[in-house]
Amino acid sequence: MAVSPRGRARERRSALFTDLYELTMAQGYFLHGIDQQAVFDMFFRREPFRGSLAVFAGLGDLIDQLEGLRFEPEDIAYLESLGYFQPPFLEYLREFTFSGELYAMDEGSVVFPQEPLLRVHTNMIEAQIIEGMVLNTINFQTLIATKAARVKTAAGDGTVVEFGLRRAQGWDGALAASRAAYIGGAAATSNTLAGRMFGIPVSGTMAHSWVMAFDSELEAFEKYADLYPERSVLLIDTYDTLDSGLPNAITVGKRLQAAGHSFGIRLDSGDIEYLSCRVREGLDAAGLHEAKIAVSNELTEEIIEQLVSRRVPVDLWGVGTNLVTGGEDASLTGVYKLAAKQYNSELQPTMKLSDNPAKTSNPGVKQVYRFFDRQGEPIADLIAFDHEQIPESGYMVFYHPQIDSRWFTLKLPQSYRAQLSCKMQAGRRVAPEPSLPEIQRYAAEELGRFDDTYKRIINPHLYKVSLSQRMRDTKQQMISGFLERYERRYTES
Amino acid sequence: MAVSPRGRARERRSALFTDLYELTMAQGYFLHGIDQQAVFDMFFRREPFRGSLAVFAGLGDLIDQLEGLRFEPEDIAYLESLGYFQPPFLEYLREFTFSGELYAMDEGSVVFPQEPLLRVHTNMIEAQIIEGMVLNTINFQTLIATKAARVKTAAGDGTVVEFGLRRAQGWDGALAASRAAYIGGAAATSNTLAGRMFGIPVSGTMAHSWVMAFDSELEAFEKYADLYPERSVLLIDTYDTLDSGLPNAITVGKRLQAAGHSFGIRLDSGDIEYLSCRVREGLDAAGLHEAKIAVSNELTEEIIEQLVSRRVPVDLWGVGTNLVTGGEDASLTGVYKLAAKQYNSELQPTMKLSDNPAKTSNPGVKQVYRFFDRQGEPIADLIAFDHEQIPESGYMVFYHPQIDSRWFTLKLPQSYRAQLSCKMQAGRRVAPEPSLPEIQRYAAEELGRFDDTYKRIINPHLYKVSLSQRMRDTKQQMISGFLERYERRYTES
Repeated sequence: MAVSPRGRARERRSALFTDLYELTMAQGYFLHGIDQQAVFDMFFRREPFRGSLAVFAGLGDLIDQLEGLRFEPEDIAYLESLGYFQPPFLEYLREFTFSGELYAMDEGSVVFPQEPLLRVHTNMIEAQIIEGMVLNTINFQTLIATKAARVKTAAGDGTVVEFGLRRAQGWDGALAASRAAYIGGAAATSNTLAGRMFGIPVSGTMAHSWVMAFDSELEAFEKYADLYPERSVLLIDTYDTLDSGLPNAITVGKRLQAAGHSFGIRLDSGDIEYLSCRVREGLDAAGLHEAKIAVSNELTEEIIEQLVSRRVPVDLWGVGTNLVTGGEDASLTGVYKLAAKQYNSELQPTMKLSDNPAKTSNPGVKQVYRFFDRQGEPIADLIAFDHEQIPESGYMVFYHPQIDSRWFTLKLPQSYRAQLSCKMQAGRRVAPEPSLPEIQRYAAEELGRFDDTYKRIINPHLYKVSLSQRMRDTKQQMISGFLERYERRYTES
Repeated sequence: MAVSPRGRARERRSALFTDLYELTMAQGYFLHGIDQQAVFDMFFRREPFRGSLAVFAGLGDLIDQLEGLRFEPEDIAYLESLGYFQPPFLEYLREFTFSGELYAMDEGSVVFPQEPLLRVHTNMIEAQIIEGMVLNTINFQTLIATKAARVKTAAGDGTVVEFGLRRAQGWDGALAASRAAYIGGAAATSNTLAGRMFGIPVSGTMAHSWVMAFDSELEAFEKYADLYPERSVLLIDTYDTLDSGLPNAITVGKRLQAAGHSFGIRLDSGDIEYLSCRVREGLDAAGLHEAKIAVSNELTEEIIEQLVSRRVPVDLWGVGTNLVTGGEDASLTGVYKLAAKQYNSELQPTMKLSDNPAKTSNPGVKQVYRFFDRQGEPIADLIAFDHEQIPESGYMVFYHPQIDSRWFTLKLPQSYRAQLSCKMQAGRRVAPEPSLPEIQRYAAEELGRFDDTYKRIINPHLYKVSLSQRMRDTKQQMISGFLERYERRYTES
């Protein structure tokens, strides 16, 4: 795993990271000569964590992976051994690269259900083979960046550090989570490899085992401070937080302060509110006003928000399991659906009908427009066709994506921005490649634009995502067409 | 990623996959000459999924990783750039390998809270550096193997296939999950790369996009059956399951059956009980008694158990998100605690005291004995010192690990088995390396030994894990000693 100069892991990853059925279908398309251009949208259906918004992440990794995607000789040999695949198709896979176009939101964008986060323009074969990889990458990193944004929102001015390595879902469940958590607002990670791979600041304190490795707690603190005078955060709950850890830390802290060093203490058990208030009093009484208090121990954004609202004197929140796994919401509901297909030489809208209206997709090649008020605050997103123009005056109708009787109008002109832009052409990156700190900053700015009511941790204000009149009319016509066609088919059968 | 002949991924993985504080502490031990032998236990505190038992998984990968663990030159360069580390310690890391011993349960064992799944014997530096990697690997794979065992228990005679790639937590969140799900009882995975890396059978059907890529559903089915006559599972819910998908599948299925091929159908939406019963009737009425029914769509073990108890005619359950992420329980609560430390030339028990009795660890170098009744059914597990002998007659007292007033006795002789055995010496594998199918078979056999009441999906019978008299007495003495020592320290300060 080499580090790119831009702080990304440019690993070549096997295109065999795909569901078997993608390959059996791809062979079918290949052998039947089905090589039309197709457009697939990726979007998610439900807000994670019962929130209102999500933070789009994973795009940089996805582009790296798409650029490097190959079937290695051992992949081809394995496929051959399965006995399902014919030599011409295996020959095709041997030369396989992703040759399509990718349109996507900027990484770090604030995103909402139903709207496409990205669209892929390519032939059916490539589009199918990359499906699982696209979903795996974007679903997970968007989930975690969103979680991190929630934790950071709850922490307010406090610093959030990601401590999730040991409870993460595997190696990459830790590494990709460190990257995404940083995008969403974590200041640092404990994972040293993530630090090296992505250029994320690394951070850490000490473990109980350090304190137990010495004859006394005071000796353990002193030895640590001697070694790391610039970065001593002393863990004070090994024996007794207030009666042993705190006085010992104060002894060492005074020495550090006298030598011009800052220091801090960490709490990893017990009641955070009670202990942090007592510890702050003790530190202040000793003149250690600059000493920081860090806490950890199964924290969630709900716990942090409540403690912050009670004004606990905590400076740094170390969050592990919940931040890197999503906690009770361990997956984003992202899907990848055929939106348009080439007939003759044109892309025609397609859609999937479902008994469940929430699962009916929206047809066609799309753009998402975000409308802002005069203060630059987002009002609503509009899903429209890519070629639609926003009129310069008059009223524009915004339709609810599922419930046809719900709509509202907006008087034009209004400022707006197209959210999707071209990131890859002919399988190569064409957009600028922001650094991870730039992506983090962009996410913070974009989150900052939204009214606080959308960012409430519990029961937030839901943001409006609408369909354009033309999109809604096309969808209605297609649904009618499907129903008629299906009726006819049924009569024929 | 090369495939080992035994079906494992032998990747060399960077030792930098560790929390920064492990390295800062390790440097402290190194510079202070703290190089005593230590023993760390890994155990978990709480049963996942509100079940009773767990299935131990990840050991094979862990041993591979420990054998290959190195700091690469770019890792050392990165650590140097942080400015915390001194040249002699960086030199040490450059030559670092894991040189310790590993004792562990056999992979696929049925395991319970509190009991050590493994113990590591090595010096403090190595023991700290590997902590995060040990926990990451075992926590996640044990979580998923346990989930798979629950799903398979719920499915009874039905086949379980893992379909989780697209919703998994990153690349390794998918691959490690495929491996662990197979150990826990999944018959196959959809993930082709997991198939290649681990030798797991791969499986797949078709997507709605295949059906939509042709002018009619019947044509789509026919084209698929022409190409894959031996493995056609037709997805029948794209337009209308009962009025279009089923009759079209029957048309194709009759042709396949006449040619001597088996086939199946798949449902991916709608009510599984209603539709699978109607589909079974339709298939049977057409003489297609051998045709299998596969279902998928956000399945959990609770949903499957209920459907199976209502005797739905489903043959194969495709489970994705919940199986590979754990669903609402996305992490195992595994921890890694110092159990013994060398004083002079002997290993002395250590333990961590906590205000919360559930977080107080058990002291010393341990063995876990599993006791069986005459039918070979497990009765209870006993956590004892490694050197303790089980007497040949008389009564043995089993103490509750936390609540001292709860105990029971067992009349000896009783058959028993030591659960922990030596897997690595001097940093190299010394135990036989079972294949993945052997591990799967072992897990199924071990699960089969336990009374069904322990395997109930909801509110199961809790299995007894106890402390030996000697372990309990030592723990009591150490707690008293700690409290006295702490009292003295407080008076002195």
